[in-house]
Amino acid sequence: MDDIAHFIAGEPYYGEGDRSGPVFNPSDGSTLYQCRYASTSTLDHAVEVAIEAGRGWANASQARRLAVIFAMRQLVIDNSDELARLIGREHGKTIADAKGEIHRGLEALEFATNAAQVTKGEYSYNVSGGIDAFSIRQPVGIVGCIAPFNFPAMVPLMMTAMAIACGNAVILKPSERVPGAAAFIGDLWRQAGLPDGVWNAVNGDKEVVDAMLEHPRIAAISFVGSTRIGEYIYHRGCAHNKRVAAYTGGKNHMVVMADADLEQAASAFVSAAYGSSSQRCMAVSLLVAVGDDTAEQLRSLIVPKIEALHIGAYDDPKADFGAVITADAKRTVEQAISDAVAAGAELVIDGRGFAVPGLERGFFTGATLLDRITTDMDFWKTEIFGPARGIVRAQDLDEAIAITNAHEYGNGAVIFTQNGHTAHRFVTEVEAGMLGVNVPVPVPVGHHNFGGLRRSKFGDAHMYGPDAARFYTKIKSISQRWPVRTQSTIPLSLAFPSNH
Amino acid sequence: MDDIAHFIAGEPYYGEGDRSGPVFNPSDGSTLYQCRYASTSTLDHAVEVAIEAGRGWANASQARRLAVIFAMRQLVIDNSDELARLIGREHGKTIADAKGEIHRGLEALEFATNAAQVTKGEYSYNVSGGIDAFSIRQPVGIVGCIAPFNFPAMVPLMMTAMAIACGNAVILKPSERVPGAAAFIGDLWRQAGLPDGVWNAVNGDKEVVDAMLEHPRIAAISFVGSTRIGEYIYHRGCAHNKRVAAYTGGKNHMVVMADADLEQAASAFVSAAYGSSSQRCMAVSLLVAVGDDTAEQLRSLIVPKIEALHIGAYDDPKADFGAVITADAKRTVEQAISDAVAAGAELVIDGRGFAVPGLERGFFTGATLLDRITTDMDFWKTEIFGPARGIVRAQDLDEAIAITNAHEYGNGAVIFTQNGHTAHRFVTEVEAGMLGVNVPVPVPVGHHNFGGLRRSKFGDAHMYGPDAARFYTKIKSISQRWPVRTQSTIPLSLAFPSNH
Amino acid sequence: MDDIAHFIAGEPYYGEGDRSGPVFNPSDGSTLYQCRYASTSTLDHAVEVAIEAGRGWANASQARRLAVIFAMRQLVIDNSDELARLIGREHGKTIADAKGEIHRGLEALEFATNAAQVTKGEYSYNVSGGIDAFSIRQPVGIVGCIAPFNFPAMVPLMMTAMAIACGNAVILKPSERVPGAAAFIGDLWRQAGLPDGVWNAVNGDKEVVDAMLEHPRIAAISFVGSTRIGEYIYHRGCAHNKRVAAYTGGKNHMVVMADADLEQAASAFVSAAYGSSSQRCMAVSLLVAVGDDTAEQLRSLIVPKIEALHIGAYDDPKADFGAVITADAKRTVEQAISDAVAAGAELVIDGRGFAVPGLERGFFTGATLLDRITTDMDFWKTEIFGPARGIVRAQDLDEAIAITNAHEYGNGAVIFTQNGHTAHRFVTEVEAGMLGVNVPVPVPVGHHNFGGLRRSKFGDAHMYGPDAARFYTKIKSISQRWPVRTQSTIPLSLAFPSNH
Amino acid sequence: MDDIAHFIAGEPYYGEGDRSGPVFNPSDGSTLYQCRYASTSTLDHAVEVAIEAGRGWANASQARRLAVIFAMRQLVIDNSDELARLIGREHGKTIADAKGEIHRGLEALEFATNAAQVTKGEYSYNVSGGIDAFSIRQPVGIVGCIAPFNFPAMVPLMMTAMAIACGNAVILKPSERVPGAAAFIGDLWRQAGLPDGVWNAVNGDKEVVDAMLEHPRIAAISFVGSTRIGEYIYHRGCAHNKRVAAYTGGKNHMVVMADADLEQAASAFVSAAYGSSSQRCMAVSLLVAVGDDTAEQLRSLIVPKIEALHIGAYDDPKADFGAVITADAKRTVEQAISDAVAAGAELVIDGRGFAVPGLERGFFTGATLLDRITTDMDFWKTEIFGPARGIVRAQDLDEAIAITNAHEYGNGAVIFTQNGHTAHRFVTEVEAGMLGVNVPVPVPVGHHNFGGLRRSKFGDAHMYGPDAARFYTKIKSISQRWPVRTQSTIPLSLAFPSNH
Repeated sequence: MDDIAHFIAGEPYYGEGDRSGPVFNPSDGSTLYQCRYASTSTLDHAVEVAIEAGRGWANASQARRLAVIFAMRQLVIDNSDELARLIGREHGKTIADAKGEIHRGLEALEFATNAAQVTKGEYSYNVSGGIDAFSIRQPVGIVGCIAPFNFPAMVPLMMTAMAIACGNAVILKPSERVPGAAAFIGDLWRQAGLPDGVWNAVNGDKEVVDAMLEHPRIAAISFVGSTRIGEYIYHRGCAHNKRVAAYTGGKNHMVVMADADLEQAASAFVSAAYGSSSQRCMAVSLLVAVGDDTAEQLRSLIVPKIEALHIGAYDDPKADFGAVITADAKRTVEQAISDAVAAGAELVIDGRGFAVPGLERGFFTGATLLDRITTDMDFWKTEIFGPARGIVRAQDLDEAIAITNAHEYGNGAVIFTQNGHTAHRFVTEVEAGMLGVNVPVPVPVGHHNFGGLRRSKFGDAHMYGPDAARFYTKIKSISQRWPVRTQSTIPLSLAFPSNH
Repeated sequence: MDDIAHFIAGEPYYGEGDRSGPVFNPSDGSTLYQCRYASTSTLDHAVEVAIEAGRGWANASQARRLAVIFAMRQLVIDNSDELARLIGREHGKTIADAKGEIHRGLEALEFATNAAQVTKGEYSYNVSGGIDAFSIRQPVGIVGCIAPFNFPAMVPLMMTAMAIACGNAVILKPSERVPGAAAFIGDLWRQAGLPDGVWNAVNGDKEVVDAMLEHPRIAAISFVGSTRIGEYIYHRGCAHNKRVAAYTGGKNHMVVMADADLEQAASAFVSAAYGSSSQRCMAVSLLVAVGDDTAEQLRSLIVPKIEALHIGAYDDPKADFGAVITADAKRTVEQAISDAVAAGAELVIDGRGFAVPGLERGFFTGATLLDRITTDMDFWKTEIFGPARGIVRAQDLDEAIAITNAHEYGNGAVIFTQNGHTAHRFVTEVEAGMLGVNVPVPVPVGHHNFGGLRRSKFGDAHMYGPDAARFYTKIKSISQRWPVRTQSTIPLSLAFPSNH
Repeated sequence: MDDIAHFIAGEPYYGEGDRSGPVFNPSDGSTLYQCRYASTSTLDHAVEVAIEAGRGWANASQARRLAVIFAMRQLVIDNSDELARLIGREHGKTIADAKGEIHRGLEALEFATNAAQVTKGEYSYNVSGGIDAFSIRQPVGIVGCIAPFNFPAMVPLMMTAMAIACGNAVILKPSERVPGAAAFIGDLWRQAGLPDGVWNAVNGDKEVVDAMLEHPRIAAISFVGSTRIGEYIYHRGCAHNKRVAAYTGGKNHMVVMADADLEQAASAFVSAAYGSSSQRCMAVSLLVAVGDDTAEQLRSLIVPKIEALHIGAYDDPKADFGAVITADAKRTVEQAISDAVAAGAELVIDGRGFAVPGLERGFFTGATLLDRITTDMDFWKTEIFGPARGIVRAQDLDEAIAITNAHEYGNGAVIFTQNGHTAHRFVTEVEAGMLGVNVPVPVPVGHHNFGGLRRSKFGDAHMYGPDAARFYTKIKSISQRWPVRTQSTIPLSLAFPSNH
Repeated sequence: MDDIAHFIAGEPYYGEGDRSGPVFNPSDGSTLYQCRYASTSTLDHAVEVAIEAGRGWANASQARRLAVIFAMRQLVIDNSDELARLIGREHGKTIADAKGEIHRGLEALEFATNAAQVTKGEYSYNVSGGIDAFSIRQPVGIVGCIAPFNFPAMVPLMMTAMAIACGNAVILKPSERVPGAAAFIGDLWRQAGLPDGVWNAVNGDKEVVDAMLEHPRIAAISFVGSTRIGEYIYHRGCAHNKRVAAYTGGKNHMVVMADADLEQAASAFVSAAYGSSSQRCMAVSLLVAVGDDTAEQLRSLIVPKIEALHIGAYDDPKADFGAVITADAKRTVEQAISDAVAAGAELVIDGRGFAVPGLERGFFTGATLLDRITTDMDFWKTEIFGPARGIVRAQDLDEAIAITNAHEYGNGAVIFTQNGHTAHRFVTEVEAGMLGVNVPVPVPVGHHNFGGLRRSKFGDAHMYGPDAARFYTKIKSISQRWPVRTQSTIPLSLAFPSNH
């Protein structure tokens, strides 16, 4: 089988000097094919292409851009079955889960039909001295998007839909673990009428990432991935005077109060915690039960739900979730469980050593639940990208908020309660960018802003939503006057001009 | 006379371990007093104070904050005479010019009365599945503001008015050349009812700047100054995961077309080019005359206007402009003139060696005009903070735009014309953040956004205007549901939740 | 004593042909002075003045208008003691209450400093075919404001602050019962620097109201008062092609759930129900207790609070509330109480026949509480402008919402609860324009929109807040192109131009 | 052939008691079929259906509504050929012209994908006393839309797209001359997934219009048509307390300055003046040539362009325009020409008595041009819906603006010039709602606001664009507090609550 190529200028591209690496099928552990890893010169080629194509696209009218966005949306819908299979095969997530991510990616495309609205400039008539003040927003140029393995379609769509709608050119680097969706999406953009070269994908690893961070013609970098790498990207990108938005790790606490509907909370926890083998930055990581009674009741509701979960291959229609991304990931998760037990956590359900019959080489881990997790344990401190979740016990709301805020991450945080005061305190006091009240996965809808706080985001941008349009545009402020002279000589005035 | 102190917790503060340096009166070259230079421990103290006071201010209601802003505005008006004298004495600019900058600073305070409006969150009812999505904006915490010498009152007011109105605490580092205004303004904030410790000023040099950039509790840095330092600040601040906005150098081209009203253009040029001894980042630096005829006519109109200028001490009511900031600055400007002449420029009016009778030790330089400046000369490339300005000759609009865009800076750019097409091309094609059409100093009015492009700004923020409110706040996105259970058991759904 | 005059062109004005009527001091029943009632020709004069002055004001820059708003705000603060006394004397409300209304009027002035922000037009660059689309907002011209007796200062300030800030001229008709504040405020505008003739007040009754509704040069009418008159004004104003906003009656239900903090609710009820002798369109009219237990507990908490109320003259510092506006008003309220008792209501506290010793001719009525009010009683159906309030008993939230929505009025509605779901249902299902959750008088803050629903408002405008700025401006949409010809002949295209 | 039915509850509906009338093919004068004219009881039925279906749609989530809008957009595109033929056959306009209107209707659908964005409420955190203030927008209920004959598809789409997207139910009354498109569009909505009964069409004449205006359950009326009828509708709708927006007549002046590109102006004039047989409210009605020289040059450029126009049947691919709507319309236009000549106008090109060979019974009128039209002529005063256009001569810009502003209508107005000052004066001084600078048909793009001024619009709403979303929603303002009690007794405070 051919290597997975880059997608440059509307077609597959194989760069001289590229290296390559394997792409696995996590469900059976097999190697699907090799993926090209771009060299710096491949990136340079992509940038040249993007400069040329981007010039025309930046000058395209809003009407023309909008037509492409509408067409792209329809193409994603029409091709979602094939795209979901492609995602599942490389990633391991179930088809239903893959369709869920495609749908959220579609939201970003749908909100991109609002680009002309949310990038409007402002016009003030006669601010002072016959001057009209107004502003326009123009694209920033070339945007580099560095995407993670866990959402092979959604994150690339979220990153690039508004960038394209605002008139930028894009160079996407998908995860080298799941490169297939990017090439597929690139071809849909082509079919949608986007001029070749406006949307490009280069595969690779650190070499191409560094080249992107340093390239003088890439104006902005959008990244989703781990905090460790995101922080590096933020520092290095800024050191090269780029706009950088890095959306990074999460350890999302789900606080459940005694007054909550515990059956709802228990069900929400299991769905939000184990979906996609817990490989989501917005997955619930920890259940913070407020009061021991609450903890006990929740546990008794949760355990049978977990035990009923079905784990299987991506294309097993009965599967609730599938494999993790690599054999290494499986080992890491299982080690984290062992370490937690050693540190004093109570092992309620043990998913270690799990295998799917017939797929013994697949990277599966069973759903694991630990109780009595405390904030001194690595299990609490570390983001775990695999189905091992824990219960933390808090005495009251104050302690629950304090635990949530003690973590270095502030991506999502959730509370289940019926009480208005409790919810309001949680929302205003918890330092997380995306908060849920009786909503376990508080990923904002497409017309609101996605982004965490603290070490879950570097830079002040948002990945989608109206604020994201700002990231992809620059503002010019114009002061304009059309004077008619009424005196033969205009007097000088060297004092600083003011409007008073 | 006492040293100029820091202003911390509502009162003067002298830190142990501080160094100090002289503050001059540029009009006569005398030393007014010494200014304290904060040590790192002085900064640490200021931050401790700001944390404590900032907590209360962040929780203050919008109504309470607004009352302080209104009071502060009135106090600045009531004290503008005294403030203007203080500015003039340390800086050298005329009283009228100082009042001009105070008025522009007032605009920032006046726009800060819009803080509650421009920081509104958004509320979407029933986005999907009974969920309401909404957002709130909260202050970022402590903001560090590093101000330049050229606008001792205006820039500090522009930087801090919206920061305070949004609920942040502020640590301002004014220029050590002009520290007096900051202490004066700090006391006005106190009188306005701002709790002690919310607005602080620390004086100093690189030591305290570095301490600010590295302090883990300072969340955001706003800087105005040279490109060299601004770039350093952006890199170092970002490397410490701060929001950084650095507004830096300018070399503002004023293009004059043949169809412009040349008398208006000539007068606008002289006012905008030489005001404040040309020590403004938004001063007109270069006159780009389109067509030789235009150049000749403009020159003949401009020369007598320059020759009529009166240069004098800050408190000389007849003075059009005053001294430059230091003896070094005077030498630098005069050297730049000599270098330009050596490089082939035509010296039309020579301001070198100028002295005001009776103030022979003052740092005065006469107004200088050079013609036939070309883009290969250092005179074109370098920002010159002193009254030496040049004429560049272009054949047509294409060349004028090309020259303007060839410069590394993109702060302001201006065109004088009567033609709509010409103005529209200029505004859309020139890569500067603030553009003027028949307006020579296109500093946007307070409800529009201040900021340059290219190497005139690092970071994507704006110093004032509605976009600035975004810099001083963080956004939380909330997904909220208040469900009633209608089933005894809630089914699981581990696929990624979508709204389709 | 002189008659109260009109205020036209910056000074008192007495029109030939005017009639007049008495202004009372409700606290002692005396006649203070006569108030002029404008004839049609007096109105015509005012309009002529406003046309002339309005032209200049419409062309004034935003900076100039803003300066007047800031000055006016300070003048109202500086004169609030005198204004409060003037209000209390004519209206009967306590000084503290009068200061409360002045402060809310100030909020409207304070929000008017946001006029330039909230009236910004929009600018879209290159929408299609080289066209830029943008919009500007300009003042509508002359605005007629018809104010009620119950807020002699607040409503005129709310109506006119944004109208003035947007560049309109104003003709205010205050209530002929309380004309003094308008003249006083008019003079403050003059002191604030508003050009004479931009803000005018004409006193009078139906004759001048009709003349305002029919005058071809008055572009917009803002009214606050009863539903009967408001509906008439809406119909007649619209029949003369004006913009009309009529804010009318209320019958504000305060629902208290069993889970609410009943002491808080009881205290809130007494304050919000009886303040200003209940003469507020946003007063709580009815307490809807959910569950008989809740009703009994609330009643036992409320009765002693009512019994502790002190009723007295406007300048009695111990008074909680004062007289009603006229002897007729007193009779109407007492009749409504008697009718309710006859209809089956339980009289818990009877305020009929109340008199303040020494002020026996004052128009006082005691605080009255009725229980077991039902929706078939006139007491439920009718807005009662006097201190007679009732308790309605509901079985559950469904019934409480149904009762609230059954009323023809939809001004304010309030719920007290601790439950998020309950509050959310109330807010989304109750058809009232201003809703409170644990806030008994849900008058929105100045940067949110004031206005009721159903028969509590005619027209879709809002009295203050950002939406109000829309009422006072008209929008122009501009499509602008600055083409350069590239062909010698331009081909025709008679099909409807589209952007596709 | 069957009568054209109403479209109610997702299917054709024939009401008992309905009358009917003929629908013509203007291209050959034949009668195509009969159209039902709804009786009041048919309308009552439609309203009942809309109430029931509207309740569910009002409660549908934003996500669900958006999906319908996207689907509808695609269906209109997929069916545009058939829809264009249907329009042309009933209306007489060319297929190309019909496609043009469909495309502009599509823009309204495309902007309706922004509904969730442009109807966002606002959220203010801690405005005062622990209160959060926020707002939500909900649909108004049932919207009645009364459409004109000249845009059988575009206007119904413009009126209803945002109404549906905001959650309202719709009852559309198309013109009884062109009823076919409405039924066709109704079926597309059904295919798009809109629940039956949310979008309904009733055909008819004044009887059903009056019934709509008076029906207590129709909350808002949107109308496009003549000023005479629009004014009636505004008065009668407001008298029944509805929101009414009536977009009415135009007499759009196109001012051409001497400095304009006259070939461009001439071509723009012919296209914009005669397209669709001049039956557009935004057609250019009059050419105002500034300077006699300009007039002469323009005339010499225009005459050959008009003479080259081809007039023919709707399906004649060579036709530039087609027939007018009825035989009466033809007579009215030709009479207006004769009257103008009698009043002193110069007849440059005479289109009277024109016939297309083979279609002698078609309602054709030839393109007519008159010169020296003056403002005292009926030809200047009256909107003429047929291809008779005139030239007015003005001496200078002042006179051109004065002429434009002298007309009672203020729909569109256009200037052709190269001068920025001239354009700016025109835009700020001309009292028209939609202005063009070098754009002959200044219909704003879908994300800007459509609406005239003066007697070209009654009510202050806009038909599409962001402001239109406001017309279709009502705003609720909520003040919310979640208090915790800190005292055992809550003190009373009867003074008006303020935030100071």
